[in-house]
Amino acid sequence: MAQLRLHPDRALPAGDDVRAVARRIYHSTRELPLLCMHGHVDAAVLADDERFSDPAHLLVVPDHYVTRMLVSQGVTLDQLGVPRLDGTVVETDPRAIWRLFCAHWHLFRGTPSRYWLEHEIAEVLKLDLTPGADTADELYDLIDARLAEPGFRPRTLLDAFNIELLATTDSATSPLHDHARLREAGLGDRVVPTFRPDALTHVGHPGWARQLEQLQELTGEDTGDYDGYLAALRARRAAFVAAGARATDHGHRAATAEPLNPAEARRLYTEARHGTAGPDATEAFAGHMLYEMARMSCDDGLVMQIHPGVLRDHDPEIHRDFGSDRGFDIPITAEFTRSLRPMLNAFGRDPRFRLVLFTVDETVYSRELAPLAGVYPAVRLGAPWWFLDSPDGMRRFRELVTETAGFYNTSGFVDDTRAFLSIPARHDLARRVDAGYLARLVLEHRLSEDEAIETAADLAYRLPREAYARRN
Amino acid sequence: MAQLRLHPDRALPAGDDVRAVARRIYHSTRELPLLCMHGHVDAAVLADDERFSDPAHLLVVPDHYVTRMLVSQGVTLDQLGVPRLDGTVVETDPRAIWRLFCAHWHLFRGTPSRYWLEHEIAEVLKLDLTPGADTADELYDLIDARLAEPGFRPRTLLDAFNIELLATTDSATSPLHDHARLREAGLGDRVVPTFRPDALTHVGHPGWARQLEQLQELTGEDTGDYDGYLAALRARRAAFVAAGARATDHGHRAATAEPLNPAEARRLYTEARHGTAGPDATEAFAGHMLYEMARMSCDDGLVMQIHPGVLRDHDPEIHRDFGSDRGFDIPITAEFTRSLRPMLNAFGRDPRFRLVLFTVDETVYSRELAPLAGVYPAVRLGAPWWFLDSPDGMRRFRELVTETAGFYNTSGFVDDTRAFLSIPARHDLARRVDAGYLARLVLEHRLSEDEAIETAADLAYRLPREAYARRN
Amino acid sequence: MAQLRLHPDRALPAGDDVRAVARRIYHSTRELPLLCMHGHVDAAVLADDERFSDPAHLLVVPDHYVTRMLVSQGVTLDQLGVPRLDGTVVETDPRAIWRLFCAHWHLFRGTPSRYWLEHEIAEVLKLDLTPGADTADELYDLIDARLAEPGFRPRTLLDAFNIELLATTDSATSPLHDHARLREAGLGDRVVPTFRPDALTHVGHPGWARQLEQLQELTGEDTGDYDGYLAALRARRAAFVAAGARATDHGHRAATAEPLNPAEARRLYTEARHGTAGPDATEAFAGHMLYEMARMSCDDGLVMQIHPGVLRDHDPEIHRDFGSDRGFDIPITAEFTRSLRPMLNAFGRDPRFRLVLFTVDETVYSRELAPLAGVYPAVRLGAPWWFLDSPDGMRRFRELVTETAGFYNTSGFVDDTRAFLSIPARHDLARRVDAGYLARLVLEHRLSEDEAIETAADLAYRLPREAYARRN
Repeated sequence: MAQLRLHPDRALPAGDDVRAVARRIYHSTRELPLLCMHGHVDAAVLADDERFSDPAHLLVVPDHYVTRMLVSQGVTLDQLGVPRLDGTVVETDPRAIWRLFCAHWHLFRGTPSRYWLEHEIAEVLKLDLTPGADTADELYDLIDARLAEPGFRPRTLLDAFNIELLATTDSATSPLHDHARLREAGLGDRVVPTFRPDALTHVGHPGWARQLEQLQELTGEDTGDYDGYLAALRARRAAFVAAGARATDHGHRAATAEPLNPAEARRLYTEARHGTAGPDATEAFAGHMLYEMARMSCDDGLVMQIHPGVLRDHDPEIHRDFGSDRGFDIPITAEFTRSLRPMLNAFGRDPRFRLVLFTVDETVYSRELAPLAGVYPAVRLGAPWWFLDSPDGMRRFRELVTETAGFYNTSGFVDDTRAFLSIPARHDLARRVDAGYLARLVLEHRLSEDEAIETAADLAYRLPREAYARRN
Repeated sequence: MAQLRLHPDRALPAGDDVRAVARRIYHSTRELPLLCMHGHVDAAVLADDERFSDPAHLLVVPDHYVTRMLVSQGVTLDQLGVPRLDGTVVETDPRAIWRLFCAHWHLFRGTPSRYWLEHEIAEVLKLDLTPGADTADELYDLIDARLAEPGFRPRTLLDAFNIELLATTDSATSPLHDHARLREAGLGDRVVPTFRPDALTHVGHPGWARQLEQLQELTGEDTGDYDGYLAALRARRAAFVAAGARATDHGHRAATAEPLNPAEARRLYTEARHGTAGPDATEAFAGHMLYEMARMSCDDGLVMQIHPGVLRDHDPEIHRDFGSDRGFDIPITAEFTRSLRPMLNAFGRDPRFRLVLFTVDETVYSRELAPLAGVYPAVRLGAPWWFLDSPDGMRRFRELVTETAGFYNTSGFVDDTRAFLSIPARHDLARRVDAGYLARLVLEHRLSEDEAIETAADLAYRLPREAYARRN
Repeated sequence: MAQLRLHPDRALPAGDDVRAVARRIYHSTRELPLLCMHGHVDAAVLADDERFSDPAHLLVVPDHYVTRMLVSQGVTLDQLGVPRLDGTVVETDPRAIWRLFCAHWHLFRGTPSRYWLEHEIAEVLKLDLTPGADTADELYDLIDARLAEPGFRPRTLLDAFNIELLATTDSATSPLHDHARLREAGLGDRVVPTFRPDALTHVGHPGWARQLEQLQELTGEDTGDYDGYLAALRARRAAFVAAGARATDHGHRAATAEPLNPAEARRLYTEARHGTAGPDATEAFAGHMLYEMARMSCDDGLVMQIHPGVLRDHDPEIHRDFGSDRGFDIPITAEFTRSLRPMLNAFGRDPRFRLVLFTVDETVYSRELAPLAGVYPAVRLGAPWWFLDSPDGMRRFRELVTETAGFYNTSGFVDDTRAFLSIPARHDLARRVDAGYLARLVLEHRLSEDEAIETAADLAYRLPREAYARRN
């Protein structure tokens, strides 16, 4: 089974009749440009435009989808060469890491990681070997050689991937130097930042004071009091807008967006500065700031994205030793109907406001998200995200939201990835799954094939373009 | 794409083998009479039996499924001619409203509204034009002309639709004058009221005092104290029974049915009368009254229906300006296992009691509703309701409840609609979806085709007839 | 329709292409031995090895899946011959009970009970009559005659069923006499106990004091104080290990596993001994003991199984008159992410620990269980359980967990049944459903057929063998 070949009909639904229609719909969208409105690729990769590292450090070590699956079967992060926060790297041999990964290839059966990795190997790297214990070394050498070719530099791939726009995710206190370099290189309109202020709005955590200092340095505003803090946030948003940003991104544990009165907000801010704010106060302030961010979006036109419902760093020992984003983020119950009510009552029908909602709790699709998006003009539903960015996950999303919210209250696919080489695979998979869903509607005579083809292009291209259009 | 043609196999599953079986099952039920046990058609429509209004005021303005979808894309209720509570109607030209609706037809792709509207245009109105910007005026004129024909009066359609029984939903304080007129017209056994006491059991809201006055006027009971209030409710239930009612209907935020001791109930009632009952007391009293209503159902035989889990009027400004039922009702988490326990412990095995449960939170289908209906003799599961009354929504209902509750603990399809012309479309769609589900069981050799055909007729006709049979 | 014939393709997916692949996958697993790692068959049945009782007392009376469905339509437990706790048996004629069951056969359409019962009649009992009012007596006589044949003794069937290992479920205070007799009969490695301490860890309920006395008698430890209680539990675990046990089983209302400090634990234990522990203390102690059981599992290697999220004995009158396990256990919302955090932080990456998680709340599959199993090495996902052990239920399990957790973080099928004759049917159904799911992946070119066949064997045999392997 060493021979890797991608079937042209992969991820299209079984059944001759439905597959034939799905194939036609998919083919009508496959050449459309990619809009990557919510990514996590490091802007430095494109600003530097250097050769990618070895296969293990490109495809395994930094990808927590991959490392967590190996960890789940007893491999340790140390064995996988994941660096400890103290600088220790236990396994430094990339070939050893690659062999360990290849020997566990069967773990990925039925997962989207396998789909993406196969696509990367076959379509991006143009190789035809399946990972496995017996192929590990040969595949390592082939990938390594391919990465040395000039056609595999990041900017060349940006063109090859047909990426029209790539949004990165950046701390609100990022000086955006890499984006400045990209602008100088003529890529300023094509690679844009996204404003992520979580480290500033979640007051009182260990790194918060340092964040406030950076904020003050960058903006010249006095973050010693609440009004200066708000002014500084506004200034950073303006800097992001100037750097081409289209959106903000907010990862809160709950979607609560409940404003405090200004006096109360000032009081909590001061408490947090003095380190005396308890967990309830911290939570209340986070909910208040989510509301304030919506208000600022009305003013500066940045699209607001909310990703709630994740308990980050479930294992404190892993967090202490290896930091965040190590596969130990576990979803919890999400709630939107009550949580977003104050924000939507204030801004949900404001034509200046655009709110894109994401979830990793599927129960809210039909119960809360589709009904909200189906009536509030500001709301669009984000694509299935993280664990749900998978063939069956994306199918369930369409099945659970379309009948209530329609297609036109969704905001199109987002790849949400750090893994640059996986971007085409992810968009390709989304287009195939949507084609399959639309084909079923055609076969059930609920939609004509012409409408399905038009809708598929809207989902792949027009809707994300519109949802994230500059509103300022 | 102006040409509208309904495919005979629409909404049946794809796949030659399963579709052939589904078609036979569907055809065995399509001519069965309609039992509309839970409707919202205004009894006055049938009592008056007058010509329907223009196309916009028949199909667009009063239908919040339709208006909410347009609102979600920035159209305002004012533009759609929805009257404000102060009497203002901004857009008074029905043709302008109709054009606005037609220009947004693509929003309904993949939604049940589209299925119903297409069915109304093609099957009820016998027209073959698809709504669209280019067809709006012609379609308006054709519908308008059709509505002027004598065959399109409400009572003629009642026959044409093959409606055996139509239950309306009526405030407990309705004097039932329209039903009296229907009785005089010989339709008393065919159009019956449903007792809805929500405005009386949710104490302390603004209109409650006025409701109590009306209750007192209608019954002669002194609603100044709790015992008179209970007696008055019993009297109204008796009046509904006399008018042919089969059921009561209860829309509570939670399904809690927890009795208070009589002294406590009296105390809370008095507090509410004096306007001093807080939200907890109000909630507790509502839960108490749900329990009391079950007790009364044992006495007078009215089937009890509960629809919990909706946060009504999510946007207070819309509610203030336009009133309720404007598309801003959003579901919340529902809970039945604990909430209904006191009621089911007291009456769940009482042969006089029948309880039909509805939900817009699908998570309770397999977790709570099917297990409860699968053991308590009083409980039947209501059809997928509101947002879930859709092809995939109805399919999921069968998939999630049948294996635990079987078919015979469900109570059959309810159309739950204000839109009289959509009734046949809704029953037709339900019969098609059930046929598709049953056909899959046949193809998987889990049911014989004979059994599937018998079951389909039970679901479409025999089960609702039995579930809502007169028990008094 | 009296003729009962099982179709060889039953429960395989419809569609010629996918069915052909599913059939090949299923056929590759159908002869594999059965591993019944989580059963409820009474060890005495195999220790005694006597003729089974009459058809009604074999297939109807003790099976709460069957009796609850009849109860849901108004039949009483008395009519079904279920004995009251006071010893009363109202209906003593097995033929009358059997007739009542057969007359309600249609209630089981679409349920797994029907699949299992048909399989038992056709495949185990080698009869070809469908239950029904008209066949009841003939079928009764045929089954009764068959059960009299020597080939239908329990141990003979153990071989005929190809059961390699059968785990029973046993109270922690069971003296395991039946297992001793089985050991003497040479079946000690094939029929093993499972340690279930719920009655000991849920302090303060009516029977708890009696349980503690038994525990003291069996172990010689003084259960008058907390340390003796822990020592006694350790001693019983050791006795179970010596008797071949592979696992423990824990049915808690919540999955909370939060340790108390030892002083607090001692205090609560003492309160419970004096009957002064309130519900909060009882709950806290149960969560503490779940944590302690994980610690003990690290020491003695017993696999830990948790089944949370059920409100037992929903109807107190039924519980008072007939006891537990009468079909009135109803699921509630389950939560794992936060509840298990202390336990997983302490032991989740300990190579000595194995934790198998079950749920009857499907919402946690993709939200919590798959993400947890997809990263913590100790965690494996148990098979769909109880109400979810059904064709569509098992399909949803694979669809909702595989993309995040893969196949190799699941622990294989468990039949979880008291009904010995239904064991082959249950494993057969699981293998068919898994074959259908895998076939779809093959048809969608997400898996090769060779991989699917290998995976199917892993799911049916290798994974449960490994998950429940002796770790001590």
